Amino acid sequence: MTNSIDTLFDKHQQTLNSALTALAERSFFTVYPEVPSGKIYGENAKKEGQAAFEARLNQPFELAQPGTDGDIGQEKSPYGFDLGISYGQSDIDVLLPAMQAQMPLWRDAGINTRTGICLEILDRLNKRSFEIGCSVMHTSGQGYVMAFQAGGPHAQDRGLEAVACAYRAMCETAGNTTWVKPQGKHDPLIIEKTYRIAPKGIGLVVACATFPTWNSYPGLFASLMTGNPVVIKPHPNAILPLAITVEVIQQVLVENGFEPHLVSLVCDEATAPITKVLAQRDEIKLIDFTGSSTFGNWLEDNARQARVYTEKAGVNSIVIDSCEQLKSVIHNLTFSLCLYSGQMCTTPQNIYIPENGIDTADEHLSFDQVAEALANGISKFLSDPARATEVLGTIVSSATLARIDAAADLGEVILASEVYHNAQFADATLRSPVLVKVQADDETKFMQELFGPIVLLIPTKDTDQSIALATKSAKTQGAITWAVYSTDTKVLAQMEDASLDACVALSCNLTGGLFVNQAAAFSDFHATGGNPAANASLTDGAFVAGRFVTVQSRRHGS
Amino acid sequence: MTNSIDTLFDKHQQTLNSALTALAERSFFTVYPEVPSGKIYGENAKKEGQAAFEARLNQPFELAQPGTDGDIGQEKSPYGFDLGISYGQSDIDVLLPAMQAQMPLWRDAGINTRTGICLEILDRLNKRSFEIGCSVMHTSGQGYVMAFQAGGPHAQDRGLEAVACAYRAMCETAGNTTWVKPQGKHDPLIIEKTYRIAPKGIGLVVACATFPTWNSYPGLFASLMTGNPVVIKPHPNAILPLAITVEVIQQVLVENGFEPHLVSLVCDEATAPITKVLAQRDEIKLIDFTGSSTFGNWLEDNARQARVYTEKAGVNSIVIDSCEQLKSVIHNLTFSLCLYSGQMCTTPQNIYIPENGIDTADEHLSFDQVAEALANGISKFLSDPARATEVLGTIVSSATLARIDAAADLGEVILASEVYHNAQFADATLRSPVLVKVQADDETKFMQELFGPIVLLIPTKDTDQSIALATKSAKTQGAITWAVYSTDTKVLAQMEDASLDACVALSCNLTGGLFVNQAAAFSDFHATGGNPAANASLTDGAFVAGRFVTVQSRRHGS
Repeated sequence: MTNSIDTLFDKHQQTLNSALTALAERSFFTVYPEVPSGKIYGENAKKEGQAAFEARLNQPFELAQPGTDGDIGQEKSPYGFDLGISYGQSDIDVLLPAMQAQMPLWRDAGINTRTGICLEILDRLNKRSFEIGCSVMHTSGQGYVMAFQAGGPHAQDRGLEAVACAYRAMCETAGNTTWVKPQGKHDPLIIEKTYRIAPKGIGLVVACATFPTWNSYPGLFASLMTGNPVVIKPHPNAILPLAITVEVIQQVLVENGFEPHLVSLVCDEATAPITKVLAQRDEIKLIDFTGSSTFGNWLEDNARQARVYTEKAGVNSIVIDSCEQLKSVIHNLTFSLCLYSGQMCTTPQNIYIPENGIDTADEHLSFDQVAEALANGISKFLSDPARATEVLGTIVSSATLARIDAAADLGEVILASEVYHNAQFADATLRSPVLVKVQADDETKFMQELFGPIVLLIPTKDTDQSIALATKSAKTQGAITWAVYSTDTKVLAQMEDASLDACVALSCNLTGGLFVNQAAAFSDFHATGGNPAANASLTDGAFVAGRFVTVQSRRHGS
Repeated sequence: MTNSIDTLFDKHQQTLNSALTALAERSFFTVYPEVPSGKIYGENAKKEGQAAFEARLNQPFELAQPGTDGDIGQEKSPYGFDLGISYGQSDIDVLLPAMQAQMPLWRDAGINTRTGICLEILDRLNKRSFEIGCSVMHTSGQGYVMAFQAGGPHAQDRGLEAVACAYRAMCETAGNTTWVKPQGKHDPLIIEKTYRIAPKGIGLVVACATFPTWNSYPGLFASLMTGNPVVIKPHPNAILPLAITVEVIQQVLVENGFEPHLVSLVCDEATAPITKVLAQRDEIKLIDFTGSSTFGNWLEDNARQARVYTEKAGVNSIVIDSCEQLKSVIHNLTFSLCLYSGQMCTTPQNIYIPENGIDTADEHLSFDQVAEALANGISKFLSDPARATEVLGTIVSSATLARIDAAADLGEVILASEVYHNAQFADATLRSPVLVKVQADDETKFMQELFGPIVLLIPTKDTDQSIALATKSAKTQGAITWAVYSTDTKVLAQMEDASLDACVALSCNLTGGLFVNQAAAFSDFHATGGNPAANASLTDGAFVAGRFVTVQSRRHGS
């Protein structure tokens, strides 16, 4: 057993070393290819992944964990069919103590063993990317390619980033030392000391429906690496991607002599939620949550026995001050606004434009001209049905549909949301973004998160007001991303200063193949933890440091 | 100005580098000599420090901070005289916004500038060690040498440790990068990114009366290093050491072009406490607290806008299982129990001994023989009046005196607390430790912190029960230190496992010149943050990581 575990660390050590370098340098790095290509993943990988997904449907999904009885599961693909999968219902009075009992063994396995196992898990997950991609598509409603990328390799990247970050944090302190204190004329005082990493307790990962793996892998791997058992509580409509994840983890654990239920899945249904009970259990010492501000704040306020890491709602802003060519700005923004129907926590919502318009290299454009260009850009971009299908994905929740329809009440509709169709899935709900002009003094209308494909264009007195409103909005409502378009270095500097005040990641003058919604592991921090959108950042030192403590012992040496 | 600041970083860079190495290796390291010697600090340093302290008495203490009006201050030396110093009363409605207004400048000064200034501050504080030592002696009631060491160089060591730890954390991420993502046959995507450290807000340091500087410097320097202004709220009876500290800090800030009130002092009196109001102000985003569990828990529960780092009450345990020579054990324990009359958060309180006694190399000793040896050891150690005066210091609070007297009710008194006298200060209150035998089934009697020179000897069925009780006590009441005496490697391993479960630092078989109460910066973690005695550790990554966030910006490169 020990040999096999040592082999895992050795096997993946190069990956770890490269990850540690990338983490520090913030350079481009991935070991999990994002292209869903047969050349990379194997000629039949896509077909096999699809088949593996389909074989899951209308079956019980078995996991190796105690205290399981009864069936649960009402997952429905946003593309219009029931998954029909049943999962075991957990008795947490049985499961949590059984998980806790495994903690000392996992703790005592040590840093390298845990690291080797976590890296092996990620490698195995990568090989399942097509199956996981299908499961993410049919729970989150993302388009196929996005579901593959965000649900598979990009989520694995974020997992690897958390592994590297946790490894770095645990290795900050030597495992032992000989402490030699001079005593003047006398012999020095010699003390042998050892330092060991101790976990906090069970980590609970509360996942969301839109990015079930991407948003949960960081917390999962950060807690597991630092010696904590992990229980995952998926969103009731996005269980499958995490059930597959736990299945893979349990297999690797068993192969290496650990009990599978060190990482367990606890499911619930929307009508009988279990998260509040679970989150307040004394065994739970770490919680990672992605979801609504209401529930995130509830967790922070009520799960006081745990350290709670939350990503909640936010209002992302774009300030348009000036640009070289509006066309390339619109090109970039259009994709950002349409991708996954605006159901990303990084999608821009509020676009501030001076009421007197903007300067470009060739001409001055009025507010209305900019607004019209954006509306036309979106319409044109979505006029290709295949592209619209792939980019928009589906609308996951009926609440989002209602918000789209209600958006017209906020102001003047510049572009109405239209219904699109998916040739393959007739029951999928596709809606294009709605563009609404909202007055700058109607703060209550735009200083709120309107999750989904709802874009507000806000005419301001000038760019100073644009920046001031974006700042106020970020400080009060939270924000994960900002973008600014300006040819004026002073404005860019001003926006950057404001981004420091409001603690929001800033993208400047994006016109090419990078979009404000995108955050790459090892280089882009996802949220800062410095405004109400999140109290944590994926993945910085603070995200891992609170998950373990260092316990020392000392004795006289010679 | 910039030159002077760069010079400060350069001036202290070797200190920083050595500190970073020590921090990782946990090796012996200090730059602030602990010996109060004229050869080191200058022939007249002691005399001058004493004179500087005396010149403070019966005078107003002026600091350069806005919103100051009125007088405050009722400090009384535990050695029996009024300090007679008056401090300004702060209007926090004026002071806090003024401090916050300085935050961007301090943030934008950057990591190296802040580091250079913090290291210069520590260097200046070191030169004031005798003055600060006198002020600590006459507020905390520590003996002279201890007040010099713990209040001066050892506190400075802890400050330097926090500086190094914060520096390391902020330097984990490169300041900028060129991110180059391959795009197959197309040109790579090239993005220029910058990463900047943003502070959280004003840091509040709530200091205690027993170690006004040692316990507050880590939070002070951790917050200041990471870009946050800091307001210090001293204990009403231990203001002077922190007023001198703030004076030194303000001088260095002004010399380098910053406003002095970036670090400010807010005082109160016991009859009109201000900490609750201060701690709940929205400007306060970080709180460092040392003191009672009641108030620490209140802060954690109520100052929800801030990240709260607490060190609270705990019950430290010693397990005696067996030893080579009891004499050297007693010698070591006696000093630990007498030092500063047990008023250290690291002083042992509960000593578990098997009811059937212990084995030594020469003979088996009964419980009563061990208890008697300890009682005799203490009496003998304190029979030298000069030593008793220096080691015991004074009892600071009347509540502690009452606890000493009430201890007799807990069980059979093995050694009564005696009154000692200080030849120099007739009004000083000196009391020796009381030793009480408490039955192991009287858990409510010993599973509570009895702050002061109160030592409970608990006869157990066997060492297994000793370890079990120590573990339960640490998990429920908290603990910062444990010690074990055993010649059996299995028992030592068992105790070490228990220390990992309970997250308590363990000292094994200390018989020489190291004592369980001592914690050396750079090598010994003070508290783990893993049990109720503290939610933080001095000083690990978690102590600094939550004090700042990283804000990035990105744009197309070429």
